[in-house]
Amino acid sequence: MTDVHPAWLPDAAFAPLAARRVRVVGEGLLAGTVRGEVTRAGARLVTGDADVVLEQREGDGPEAYEIARRDGVTTVVAGGGPGLLYGLFHLVRLGEEAFAGDRAPERHAPAHALRMLDHWDNVDVHPVMGQVERGYAGGSIFYADGRVREDLSRVAAYARLLAAIGINRVAVNNVNVHRREARLLTDDLPDVARIADVLRPWGIRLHLSVSFASPVLLGGHTSADPLDPDVQAWWAAATERVHAAIPDFGGYVVKADSEGQPGPFAYGRDHADGANLLARALAPHGGVVHWRAFVYDHRQDWRDRTTDRARAAYDHFAPLDGRFADNVVVQVKHGPMDFQVREPVSPVLAAMPRTRLAVELQVTQEYTGQQRHVCYLAPAWREALGFRPWGEDGATVSETLRGGVAAVSNVGDDPFWTGHPLAQANLYAYGRLAWDPDADPLDEWVSLTFPGAAPAARALLHDTLDRSRRTYEDYTAPLGVGWMVRPGHHYGPDVDGYEYTPWGTYHFADRDGIGVDRTVATGTGYAGQYPRPWSDVYESRDTCPDELLLFFHHVPYSHVLASGSTVIQHVYDTHFAGVAEVERIVAAWDRADGLLPADVVARVRGRLVEQLRSAREWRDQVNTYFLRKSGVPDARRRTIH
Amino acid sequence: MTDVHPAWLPDAAFAPLAARRVRVVGEGLLAGTVRGEVTRAGARLVTGDADVVLEQREGDGPEAYEIARRDGVTTVVAGGGPGLLYGLFHLVRLGEEAFAGDRAPERHAPAHALRMLDHWDNVDVHPVMGQVERGYAGGSIFYADGRVREDLSRVAAYARLLAAIGINRVAVNNVNVHRREARLLTDDLPDVARIADVLRPWGIRLHLSVSFASPVLLGGHTSADPLDPDVQAWWAAATERVHAAIPDFGGYVVKADSEGQPGPFAYGRDHADGANLLARALAPHGGVVHWRAFVYDHRQDWRDRTTDRARAAYDHFAPLDGRFADNVVVQVKHGPMDFQVREPVSPVLAAMPRTRLAVELQVTQEYTGQQRHVCYLAPAWREALGFRPWGEDGATVSETLRGGVAAVSNVGDDPFWTGHPLAQANLYAYGRLAWDPDADPLDEWVSLTFPGAAPAARALLHDTLDRSRRTYEDYTAPLGVGWMVRPGHHYGPDVDGYEYTPWGTYHFADRDGIGVDRTVATGTGYAGQYPRPWSDVYESRDTCPDELLLFFHHVPYSHVLASGSTVIQHVYDTHFAGVAEVERIVAAWDRADGLLPADVVARVRGRLVEQLRSAREWRDQVNTYFLRKSGVPDARRRTIH
Repeated sequence: MTDVHPAWLPDAAFAPLAARRVRVVGEGLLAGTVRGEVTRAGARLVTGDADVVLEQREGDGPEAYEIARRDGVTTVVAGGGPGLLYGLFHLVRLGEEAFAGDRAPERHAPAHALRMLDHWDNVDVHPVMGQVERGYAGGSIFYADGRVREDLSRVAAYARLLAAIGINRVAVNNVNVHRREARLLTDDLPDVARIADVLRPWGIRLHLSVSFASPVLLGGHTSADPLDPDVQAWWAAATERVHAAIPDFGGYVVKADSEGQPGPFAYGRDHADGANLLARALAPHGGVVHWRAFVYDHRQDWRDRTTDRARAAYDHFAPLDGRFADNVVVQVKHGPMDFQVREPVSPVLAAMPRTRLAVELQVTQEYTGQQRHVCYLAPAWREALGFRPWGEDGATVSETLRGGVAAVSNVGDDPFWTGHPLAQANLYAYGRLAWDPDADPLDEWVSLTFPGAAPAARALLHDTLDRSRRTYEDYTAPLGVGWMVRPGHHYGPDVDGYEYTPWGTYHFADRDGIGVDRTVATGTGYAGQYPRPWSDVYESRDTCPDELLLFFHHVPYSHVLASGSTVIQHVYDTHFAGVAEVERIVAAWDRADGLLPADVVARVRGRLVEQLRSAREWRDQVNTYFLRKSGVPDARRRTIH
Repeated sequence: MTDVHPAWLPDAAFAPLAARRVRVVGEGLLAGTVRGEVTRAGARLVTGDADVVLEQREGDGPEAYEIARRDGVTTVVAGGGPGLLYGLFHLVRLGEEAFAGDRAPERHAPAHALRMLDHWDNVDVHPVMGQVERGYAGGSIFYADGRVREDLSRVAAYARLLAAIGINRVAVNNVNVHRREARLLTDDLPDVARIADVLRPWGIRLHLSVSFASPVLLGGHTSADPLDPDVQAWWAAATERVHAAIPDFGGYVVKADSEGQPGPFAYGRDHADGANLLARALAPHGGVVHWRAFVYDHRQDWRDRTTDRARAAYDHFAPLDGRFADNVVVQVKHGPMDFQVREPVSPVLAAMPRTRLAVELQVTQEYTGQQRHVCYLAPAWREALGFRPWGEDGATVSETLRGGVAAVSNVGDDPFWTGHPLAQANLYAYGRLAWDPDADPLDEWVSLTFPGAAPAARALLHDTLDRSRRTYEDYTAPLGVGWMVRPGHHYGPDVDGYEYTPWGTYHFADRDGIGVDRTVATGTGYAGQYPRPWSDVYESRDTCPDELLLFFHHVPYSHVLASGSTVIQHVYDTHFAGVAEVERIVAAWDRADGLLPADVVARVRGRLVEQLRSAREWRDQVNTYFLRKSGVPDARRRTIH
């Protein structure tokens, strides 16, 4: 643990608190955690006169808190232990400002009751996917050598970081539940309970990903049919045992009938039958089922242009609205495909008013540079959470969610937690946006992580991060088309890599044009899955936003975008511009010595070398591919190979 | 062992012999093997009057034999033990014909003294490449569970099969020598010696693939510099120990400075320095070094059109001609690239008159359907061995080789040995062609493997195998262009899969044309590596054979081939025709019940299902790719997606 980066909780961030006398009023585990943090900060815990009073007082919800300051005393009043802890971290964020002048009472409560991180960690090292599926930050913090780690101090440090950003649920294993990992539900319960014990003081409940086939895999049953009473009894008993070991167990995460995972289809049942089976087992214990809506045909025939993977989640789930039990959360990826750098918002999020939906985001940068590239994703998430499916006067996605938010963690046993030090900002931003979708957490993250950073350092970080998602988009797949990556590991360019595969991920580029016709009039009809006005906006290539044009339309290379550029010239221009931007960032970091800690500068520079190499590879492959195919030369006559 | 297919040595093939009295005159290990075979066949071993006399008599080379029949007695006179054994198997091939009428003396001697099979078997299961690299027939017959198998009875049966086709050298481990496998040379010698003991009675000497870095990996040296006396001493001592354990040890196979394997370049030395280092250590013991010429830049920049992988072996090795020790064999792949279904013959084979060259063939079907597709390769090998680099009046490749032939085995622990039962024909044909490059071994193979097969069965096998390489070529990569496979595993189509990679394997297709300009006049100059007349023939697109056109020239899709078809129409036509041919074969096997053993029919049918699926996938991807790119419709208006 000694060599682990403190991320957004360095000791220096607690300095303003350290000078204060703090009174903590409240009982219970989390009040104890708060007292521990106060002591750790070097502040004086008092019972009498205090500069800061943190008080747990019934009335408000357990996570909410009110912060105020009067007569030189800063007060936090919270409805429960978690609120007390969140209030304390709020003070840390405020820094000296928390102790200056008066402060009118200000209530804070989370936008979402469920704020979850999913770990795609395997217990055994998977021969293809490794210890952490889609993990780019080393091994798992939970598992090593085929079992739960003995030493969970790293998990405790992680939980503290998560509490500081308001995360309250963690699923500790991969949604692709392999044979070994299935046993976490049974044989490994004592070890899983140890993890839960480490998370609990930080207000975090543990969830498990489970195999829908568990009754067969673990219980010796011949069926996992959700309507089979024996199967129901098995789940009830198994869940009872989990709850006995972990009294505050959060619930199950399930990937069913998706990419080869077992599910209810095998028994002629649907997703509601499947989800409700587990929901019934969990209900007596207050647990929830996160049932993923990431269901599509991954053995599609590329020749068949009528099947459209983008439609699949809606086609599978929208008809089931109203059939899910109250403690089922249907977890919907933010876009209809799979975490591409640019996708429209999933229409499922507007299609199931009688279902508790959660949106699933991906903090781990599977398709966005794998933590070798800088790609600050908060702008994309804010777009998704703030999207108004019913138009400007309607609610935002975030406002309609009753199942909260979930995201795939980007953390591993890397000393910087996230491989790329700047990828810490993604994890921070996710937590803060889960609490408040309108937050703009970058400045907070900078202030906490690099206390006292000079304006030039802050400017460098902003310069590097602010536009980084757009830059990544610029040098990779243009105009919302996505998927031009190397199959399998998903790193680096391969324009046709997924074009003739069963994965449903095509661009249909020919010598004349490119894009997927998803209109109602002439295409797959996907655009019609949106309510108005978006169904109309996307239906027409005249109103469809440029950045999603190729997602919704197949157009000639000569098509003129709203920007005034042709599609082909846009491809060339953005690819040259994206690389130029990376070159500019590299140059900026060449001058970073002394601005930021040397270990951070060194690690970032190392990653930038690879980002630049890779960005150039993307630029050249994409430009060459489209020059060869379209025959249209670059209007500015730059080098295309 | 009970469930292993007898391949070309079923008991029934020995029936004609069984009825005879056989006298074996000779001493030594192999004479004992011959006696064992006679007994096993059910024949009577006699010392007096006999129907067959097999006599070992000094005079001729040890592998040669003379066969004759007079006065009702068939005689085999051999110069040594191996010749005696080969003569016996010759009788088996002849069947009843060996015992009919008189027979004028006929001498048989191998075209090549070294007739080798290379196994790319790993001791440990490699995380990516598996137990057998490029193996499509199950696990290794030599290794299991991270060590040499205890039970080597399968190896004994294999050695017997090899002896029957005249193979006399076997390299028992992968040329990519990983850390574990490097230790075969030292720690595992007692186990390797057990393998050698099993091969020896069949006239087969064992070879080991070794790491050039062995002195570092195994000897604790800091260098593997071939000019370092300590390194030389290490190899001398190590080889001494090998020889002590295996007195007839064959020698080393080395892949050096190739695809990441260590080699002499690291020390500023060249391939001759490297090969001679090992040759010196082996010379006192009569061993040879097989030094592979498969050397090229596998980290090439696809943007750089001047670098040409096809040139690499010649550029590296031709200047070294005359520098290699006498017991070095430079092992040259038959084509300049890597075992594509169609390549020109490597110009290296005509460029090193003062060097002992071996040609390397690939029996395992890496790029030719991976033993899921039928692809009888003997026609391709006959083309290569019979190629006349100096024109019609010059010698053939086979005639110029002084280092013999080597090939990568297609055998594993599959019950049929080779996965696809018909892939046994490739192994059989390889051995027979290594002995006699003019052989046409298919009828022999059929007669031995399916004794008494009806004419309809023979016709079915011919129909399935004769044209199968051409058919495979038809539905895969056209006109010699190669490489349109999925990267990594090399199965199934991906037209652009290798197009923007560092592997030096490109087709340069754009909207106007396709192919690699390897001419002297305007291209990479590769055509100039051939002697006349071939340098001229390949230089001009008018004289270049159609099937190699895109290997040597970049031409418009509208280019008219010698066949009269345009390039683009040829692509469409061959791809439709190739699939139609597979469909025809599938239909033929639908009627195969009773013609051939049921287990063979069942296995072949299973493979044909996959071959047909895969062939259609090839047809559709390739046709669609080129229709999209060229915009030229199929003249016959067939379905292109």
